[in-house]
Amino acid sequence: MDKIREFQKLLKYKFKNINLLKEAMTHKSIKNSINNERLEFLGDAVVDLIVGEYLYHKFKGKKEGDLSKLRASLVNEDSLAKIAIKLRIGEFLYLSTAEENNGGREKPSLISDALEALIGAIYLESGIDTAKKIFILLLEENFPDISLNSLTKDYKTTLQELTQASIGVAPKYELISSSGPDHKKSFEMAVLLNGKEIARATGSSKKSAEQACALKALEILE
Amino acid sequence: MDKIREFQKLLKYKFKNINLLKEAMTHKSIKNSINNERLEFLGDAVVDLIVGEYLYHKFKGKKEGDLSKLRASLVNEDSLAKIAIKLRIGEFLYLSTAEENNGGREKPSLISDALEALIGAIYLESGIDTAKKIFILLLEENFPDISLNSLTKDYKTTLQELTQASIGVAPKYELISSSGPDHKKSFEMAVLLNGKEIARATGSSKKSAEQACALKALEILE
Repeated sequence: MDKIREFQKLLKYKFKNINLLKEAMTHKSIKNSINNERLEFLGDAVVDLIVGEYLYHKFKGKKEGDLSKLRASLVNEDSLAKIAIKLRIGEFLYLSTAEENNGGREKPSLISDALEALIGAIYLESGIDTAKKIFILLLEENFPDISLNSLTKDYKTTLQELTQASIGVAPKYELISSSGPDHKKSFEMAVLLNGKEIARATGSSKKSAEQACALKALEILE
Repeated sequence: MDKIREFQKLLKYKFKNINLLKEAMTHKSIKNSINNERLEFLGDAVVDLIVGEYLYHKFKGKKEGDLSKLRASLVNEDSLAKIAIKLRIGEFLYLSTAEENNGGREKPSLISDALEALIGAIYLESGIDTAKKIFILLLEENFPDISLNSLTKDYKTTLQELTQASIGVAPKYELISSSGPDHKKSFEMAVLLNGKEIARATGSSKKSAEQACALKALEILE
């Protein structure tokens, strides 16, 4: 079985126009050739819509903010690369020798871009319903437990669950200081248990500083 | 003719499920009611895909970077608000008395969000092809000359050239306020000449708000 047939079997989709598949799998390191950047531009929007609609229907009680968080946790380089690895996209990519020697077939950015391009290509030749079917299948295979908890579980929540269970107290966060100009502020926060400081951390927002505090506290407590 | 019929005539689309239209037009200031935030979440992705695909086909020679720039110039608060004003969305919005007294029917953020929700609602009940037809029509009516030049013309540069030449002074930009959650921030900027405010505008980034300021200033000065 040749490579292209093998890949289409993994993808569970057979391209009508094989050139479109080739375009989707061609990295820009191949010069003087059409590459997958335009298809990726399109596919990025297709994936956003597919996942957005999926979450919209799946989580009818969730507000916009939660849906956005959920989508961000599914549509990002790491998550898409995970799917791309399952599809063995790296093996089927067209790239330059230099990029190949540079580990291009394993780069999350490269393979996640190719996955988006692939979905863009399927959308172009077969429409949104087919693209939806293919991508949701991949999504559910790779993320069998899609829920707000599993996907956006954060350190603050984990820390709170831990301290509530162990000492019956929720952590508190305090702003220690902020500095820097408006466009580049830095916040230093502390996390306290029963009024006693456990850890300090800085971040570019209070939220990110709190998360960093919680992570430090978890490392200390565990 | 009642309001709903009038609006649907402007939109050139008749809703099968009138509740979906009402949801799309309900601002979150109306408490204890379904509001348009979830539909806006969906519609935002629908609009991105529609415009992305439109540009993908229209500018076959353009690279991904140019397509992204073009889309950003069409899909932003100001451009969507322009379309929303043509549709008179402000008149048909459901909002609280407080928000109404606060000028809610004229706020670019409110009416552009409602427009996205509306496209999301049309997508939900009639699919991508209908949503595409409706939105591309609106796009072409409001931006008859879609091209890289016309759309990404840098108003800040034009304004600076004008003011330097006429009064020997460069415009300055000031952040007035920012609001909204991290993933959906809105910035209000002002443009000043010799310390005197010429115009204000909002945008989803400081840059886009500055561009909108510069455009307003150009309209005033010219």
